[in-house]
Order: sequence, then C-alpha cells, then structure tokens
Amino acid sequence: MNPTRPNLAGWVRSSNNVTQQFLSLGGRPDVVSLAGGLPGSEFYPVDAVRSATGRALDRWGAQALEYGPVEGFPALRASIAKRIAAANDAPVGIDNVLLTAGAMQGLDLLGKTLIDPGDLIVAQFPTYLGALDAWRPRNPSYAKLDWQLDRPGLDDVLSDAKFVYAVPNFSNPTGVLVPTEHRKALLSKVHAAGTWLVEDDPYLPLQIDGSAGPSILALDAASRLGNVYDGPVVYLGTLSKSIAPGFRVGWVVAEPRLIETLALAKQSTDLSSSMFAQAVALELIESDIEATHVPMMVRHYRERRDALCASAARHLSEWFSWDVPPGGMFVWLRATNPAIDTNQLYTFALEEKVAFVPSSVFDPAGELRDAMRLNFTRSTPDMLDEGIRRLARAVRRYLASSAPDRGTC
Amino acid sequence: MNPTRPNLAGWVRSSNNVTQQFLSLGGRPDVVSLAGGLPGSEFYPVDAVRSATGRALDRWGAQALEYGPVEGFPALRASIAKRIAAANDAPVGIDNVLLTAGAMQGLDLLGKTLIDPGDLIVAQFPTYLGALDAWRPRNPSYAKLDWQLDRPGLDDVLSDAKFVYAVPNFSNPTGVLVPTEHRKALLSKVHAAGTWLVEDDPYLPLQIDGSAGPSILALDAASRLGNVYDGPVVYLGTLSKSIAPGFRVGWVVAEPRLIETLALAKQSTDLSSSMFAQAVALELIESDIEATHVPMMVRHYRERRDALCASAARHLSEWFSWDVPPGGMFVWLRATNPAIDTNQLYTFALEEKVAFVPSSVFDPAGELRDAMRLNFTRSTPDMLDEGIRRLARAVRRYLASSAPDRGTC
Repeated sequence: MNPTRPNLAGWVRSSNNVTQQFLSLGGRPDVVSLAGGLPGSEFYPVDAVRSATGRALDRWGAQALEYGPVEGFPALRASIAKRIAAANDAPVGIDNVLLTAGAMQGLDLLGKTLIDPGDLIVAQFPTYLGALDAWRPRNPSYAKLDWQLDRPGLDDVLSDAKFVYAVPNFSNPTGVLVPTEHRKALLSKVHAAGTWLVEDDPYLPLQIDGSAGPSILALDAASRLGNVYDGPVVYLGTLSKSIAPGFRVGWVVAEPRLIETLALAKQSTDLSSSMFAQAVALELIESDIEATHVPMMVRHYRERRDALCASAARHLSEWFSWDVPPGGMFVWLRATNPAIDTNQLYTFALEEKVAFVPSSVFDPAGELRDAMRLNFTRSTPDMLDEGIRRLARAVRRYLASSAPDRGTC
Repeated sequence: MNPTRPNLAGWVRSSNNVTQQFLSLGGRPDVVSLAGGLPGSEFYPVDAVRSATGRALDRWGAQALEYGPVEGFPALRASIAKRIAAANDAPVGIDNVLLTAGAMQGLDLLGKTLIDPGDLIVAQFPTYLGALDAWRPRNPSYAKLDWQLDRPGLDDVLSDAKFVYAVPNFSNPTGVLVPTEHRKALLSKVHAAGTWLVEDDPYLPLQIDGSAGPSILALDAASRLGNVYDGPVVYLGTLSKSIAPGFRVGWVVAEPRLIETLALAKQSTDLSSSMFAQAVALELIESDIEATHVPMMVRHYRERRDALCASAARHLSEWFSWDVPPGGMFVWLRATNPAIDTNQLYTFALEEKVAFVPSSVFDPAGELRDAMRLNFTRSTPDMLDEGIRRLARAVRRYLASSAPDRGTC
C-alpha cells in the first residue's frame, strides 16, 4: 500500500479482490447481473416490518436498543432453538444456539475458533466463495470433498481436518441436492474421524421442486441419546433467504461448549448483534410471516428458474450443460467446449453488459475454469432471458477471438 | 474440549474467559454492577426510534431490508463523512469512511487487516480490554504507550509497530483526557516512524466538564494538503454512546486505500451490517436527536459521576486514590495500599454483591493488579452509593483475610 506504512497482513497481500470485482461490477444499472446471490428485493415484506417494529418497541422498550447478550436476544434465541428442534426432531435447546450477523458471521467465527495457520478444512467442492473468504484470514489448507466419498485416503484426511464443510441443500454454487445416503455416509465417516461437520443450510426455505433432504443435524440427532444435542454437527441457518437479508439474523447450532467458545469469539468481533434488528425479526417470526411469504417467493423463483433454464436451452446449449436445480438460487453451467475458460469469458460478458460468477472463485486453488454460476432469484424472467442472450453473444465473440488463427493457442 | 474432537485454535486454548466472567457476573439482579461499560438504558430514545423507523421505511422501502454495500448504507455513510469532516475541519469524504457493527468491529477489522502473528501493537496503557480481545485471535505482541513519550527507544518501537492504539478522550479504563501537546507529540513521532495511529473516540459525546480535546485526526488534517484525507490516523467512532448501542452503528475513518482493504475484510466477516438498523439510525441523526438527547444524558451522567466520587471519598479514600474524570463513563481507582490485589478483591466484592473490573484485564500481560475500573453511567446515584458501601465492606474483609497472621503473606 503506502511504502512509508507497515505491511498489511499476509493473507491480504497474497489475495486479490477478484471476488469483490466480480460482485460489484454486477451492480451497474446497465448490466444484467446473474452474479451475486441476492433474493428478489421486490418481495421483501416492508409493511410487515413496519408493524413488527411497533410491536417490538411496545414489547421490549429500551431493551431493544441495548447492547445484547453476545449469544443473542434471548427471546429470539429461544424461538430459533424451538424452530430448529421441531424441524429436525432434535434436542436443540437455547444453549445449543448462537445468533450471528447472518450465517456469514458463523463461518467467520468458526474460522477464528478452530483454525490456526495451515490447518486443514475438508470442503464440498466447488466451495461457496463466502466461506473461502471468511477463512482466508486464518490461512487454512483445503482438501476437496467429493460426495461419492471415493477420494483415496479419505479417512486419514478427515482425521487430520479441523472440520468438514458441506452445503447439502441446493448447494452454492452448484444447486445440487445431496442424496440422503451420501449425507449418512459422510456423517458416519465424520464420527469415525472425530472431527466437526459444518452443515451450511441457507437455502432450506427455497424448495422449488419438492422437499429438501433431511439435515445431517437431524440424521445425527436421531441416533443420539440425551436431552441436549452434543454431536459433531455444526448447523448454520439464516433469515436472509426466508424474510430479508437486511436484519443480518443468522444462527449457529452446535454442542453447548462449542457455542460458548464461538460466543467468546463473537464478543471480540462485534460485542453483540443489533438487538433492534433481532427484536423486530422475532416479531416477524412470531407472526408466522414465513408461512405465506416463503411460498409466494418460491412461486416466483420457480418461474425465474424455469425462464433462465429455457433461455439457456435456446441460446447456450451448444457450449454448456447443466442440471435444473430443484431449489436454491443458482444454476451451474459447465462448459462442454474445452476451449472455454470462464475467467476469460467474463471480460467478454461484461462488454455485452451481463455478469456471472466464474467457477475459479469457488476453488481454493483458483484453478476451476470451466463453469459459471448464474443466479435466477434477483431478476425478472424478461431480464433473465435478456441476460442469457447477451451471454450467448459474449461466448460467440470470445470463441471467435480465441480461435487458433488468432494465434492465442 | 471434547477429547475426540480437534483442538481449538491456539489463541482460544491459551486464553481464558476471565473477561466474560467479570462482565457477566455483573448482570445478576442482586449485584450492583460497577463493571461493564453500558449507558443508562432509561435514556434510550424509544419513541424517536419508532417514528424514525416509519420514516426510514417510507423513504427507502425494500432497500432498507437489503444486503448492503459492504462499506455501509450509502446515505448514512455520506452523513457520517460530513459529520466527521465538520467536527474536525478535515477533508473527509465518503471514500474515507467504512461503517462498522459498532466501533468494536473496526478494531476486529484492523487486526485482521494489519496483524500477522507476533506483529507489534503500541497501545496506550492500561488498554481497553475490548481492543485486547479483538486482536487476540491475531496473536500480536504489545509495547506500552506512555503519553509522556519518555519510553527509552520509543522511536524504534514505533518504527517496528503495525500501529499505535490510543483513546485520547476520556480513556477507557482511566477516564483520562490527554492534553493537546501530548497528542501533537505522538502524531509527530507517528509520522517519523511511518506507522498507523488508531484513535478510538467512542466517548467524545460524553463531555461532562467542558470540551474534549482536538482529535488527532483534526491535528493531522490541519497540517495536510489535498482534498481527501490520506494521513496515518485511523479514527473510530460510534453512535452507541450518543444515541443507543442497539443499532451497532460505528465507523472507521481512514485514508481511502486502507478503507478499501478494511471493507474487503468486512465482506468476509459479515457481508454487510444491518441496512435496516443503519436506515433507522440515519433518520435519528438527520432529526438531530443528539442535539437534545446528549446534553440530557450528560446532565445525568454528571450527577452520577459526582455521586460515585462523593461516595468513594467517604468510603474508599483510606485505600484508593483517583482523579475525577472530566467525561466518559469510568472512574479509575488506584490502590494506595500495596497489599491490595484487585483480582483477589474481586472475589470479596462479589460476595458483597458488587462488581467492578479489575485492572489486570486492561494489561496484555495481565500483571496490573493495583487498580479497578468503576462505571458510573449505568446506575442511579443511590445505587452507586450502595455499590461503593458494599465495595468498602469487601475491602475491609479482604484486607482482614489477607493479614500476615493469616499466613498468606
């Protein structure tokens, strides 16, 4: 930075802001952004928030404006514990829950609490870029998790790992719904290895074609005794996808001693999350807004997913293949043409005023170059179609420019 | 933790939860807590928040429920830039400002961005325990800053440091108001050494006896050219003390490239702060609530400070001395009796149902044992007097128990 000032920390100097660039360039109004991972903001329940705020201030008064207990606003913490217990038929009590500033802060706190430089994380591959970003300041190493669990020496790798990271429901970036038997097989190996299993479940509410799978938390709880969950699963959730992201309300569910340690790390991160936002979020949950709000959103998301996939079938199937995701927010396009490097394609896409996220950012080594993530929740069907048309133009120009006669091979 | 699970990160294993214990034990209803650093919650402007929320939702709609730009809600960021520019007569624009989840998150992000294991921080001593907590996961080393600047080899120490940390206005824990000439002298040495100077200014609004000093940011800006502040001062502020902590709205002011780097670190910490809380905070600021709210609070705080000091003069002056702080939230009592170890006294105090913060937690080495921090903003004058009486009983019992004939010397 400034030559007369001290060096930045090593992880900053060795990283780059490519992720930030990819995401921020999508914010230009003339660009159709299929990047980002944002909900459709026209569905945010503004009027419900207005009345919820009134109720929260009537109910809690000055308590809603206070520093909070670092573990979270107690009534919301209890409500989330009850929700997780019921949804997973698991003995989850208040001591199993830490409320966080979105699920993202859960990832940050897990890195702080568990990772020393060089420590191993076994991560579902390709890997949510926010998780890679969260852990980068702790300088971890990575091994790739393959759900077939056929990696040679996997048991030893798991034994060496601080934790496994998995997004079994409608994964980011691939949209994959991991089959129940794979979840069970991984859980069994995690038990044998004596490591933690971080199950990140933000997309649970976005079930477009039928149900999500049973959480690994539920699978584990079903086989345990005791009145308080004390297994190896660390389960992350959020209100960002079911209500709105602007409250920054997420949670970590884990065995109580790990929750205590994560709370210690949270205290030294931000003292506590906004009690005001948490008190309002509690009113929204208690009014059961999700029961009507989520199905309405999911109907729109289904229409958007189908519009994007139909447009891709018309305009991109010459170069890419994909599976229609049964839920979540993303379609993962894999290049069938080996000449395509999506990092290079990105430049052409921006020139055509369309943005996506190239696969390299979902690889700790940055080497995955043959795929891209498209978001379908943020844009209307017409915008999605326009974005795909622009993308097809970008692919054509990119392939023409990199043809052998241009001397770039 | 669980022997079958991986080790926690080194900093967790080597630390303890003494700080958390000191602070949480103060939350028992039968205990008079002079620990903590909390405002008087009866002054929080609940009705103003109610109307501000209505205005914020009318004005911003769904934008107030969105993921934010990581740098902060743009209109609030501009408003804070304007406030800092005006208060310090400094060329502070929006690019100089990062909004954070309280000033605490600014400390966390500075550690993430600047500190590798073993890196040196020069910190005003005794040091705000929240700062020590924030930086512990980065494993820094410390040198003590003495405002007389007469530490041998200080110039070399500053040249080796990643940054200097100072709380010049009504410092935590001592309540000291650092004289302007000391601020200038430190700034000059920081320039010569080519390091950063982190100026933490949460107590600025709490001016009980006349003005705070000029910020070091202002002193530096006065000597610089240019339209954008680009000096070595990193200035932290917050709304927690002037309005309410429950919004978690704080800020870092620094040269734009450092702000960009801190924003990168914030993105990987929580993606963004609550837009909802920020939108409401903006309405409160724009309604100029602080102009009436702060003087009202400060009148009460003056009465409370005076009550605590008067009671201490009656009951504690046999064993302790102190300066009446000209502002802030704390009185720092230094033992004049060398037999007093405030870590030991703490146990007796809790038995008498009064809590304070012992000096050891404000020392990176934990060795400072002859002082304690008392908070006067949270309790009524009667409660403060009762707390001091209990503390005097605790001192008597402690000294009797540790008398030589008991064999503990």
